Amino acid sequence: MLLSHMANQNRISLDTVFHALADPTRRAVVSRLGQGPAAVKELAEPHDMALPSFLKHLDMLERSGLVSSEKLGRVRVCTLHPEAFQTANTWIEEQKRMWERRFDRLDLLVTQLEKESGDVRDN
Amino acid sequence: MLLSHMANQNRISLDTVFHALADPTRRAVVSRLGQGPAAVKELAEPHDMALPSFLKHLDMLERSGLVSSEKLGRVRVCTLHPEAFQTANTWIEEQKRMWERRFDRLDLLVTQLEKESGDVRDN
Repeated sequence: MLLSHMANQNRISLDTVFHALADPTRRAVVSRLGQGPAAVKELAEPHDMALPSFLKHLDMLERSGLVSSEKLGRVRVCTLHPEAFQTANTWIEEQKRMWERRFDRLDLLVTQLEKESGDVRDN
Repeated sequence: MLLSHMANQNRISLDTVFHALADPTRRAVVSRLGQGPAAVKELAEPHDMALPSFLKHLDMLERSGLVSSEKLGRVRVCTLHPEAFQTANTWIEEQKRMWERRFDRLDLLVTQLEKESGDVRDN
């Protein structure tokens, strides 16, 4: 029960993190926040779109856990949470380990076949 | 001109790869194909959905470049192309390097401030 709840949470988090990164505006915001917190106005400035559209992108980033925002006086300031990348990174790394194991096995098989065909030729 | 075309291609590829990974069915297909090529029928089998819905997921994976398919006789066989992950992986790694540089600078600043406040206390 607890494990299936955790797997579910993990799935939702992978869905929302990958979805958050699947857009150039959202990736640009993540890159900018990688250099330090910034006000919404400053974040929106380089993007040629209406503020409500930009706020929808920010909302998606907040729902993914990659970004949080806080009202300081009259200014809303956004902060990056790089640790939210971790599930996505871990998933990609797991896939790479699986392929590498598979290619190692294929390499071994090819080496064995080459050796056997060499043995056949030598006899 | 060429550079902006390349940047554009790269952006589209990041968009489609991250979007392809933002769904549990598509990630399950990627994991399965990491173990070797498989027929569409075999890939669809564990997923509780109508074949047309499943084919839409496959189409999205093909458009991202992560998967290709080929008709062998009467069977369509899918193959993974792990190299398509590379742009996504490179982007995440670049972000990590940026945060690390930023935290290194913050660490340095804290060390300097601690040293200076120590010097003040010592005098």
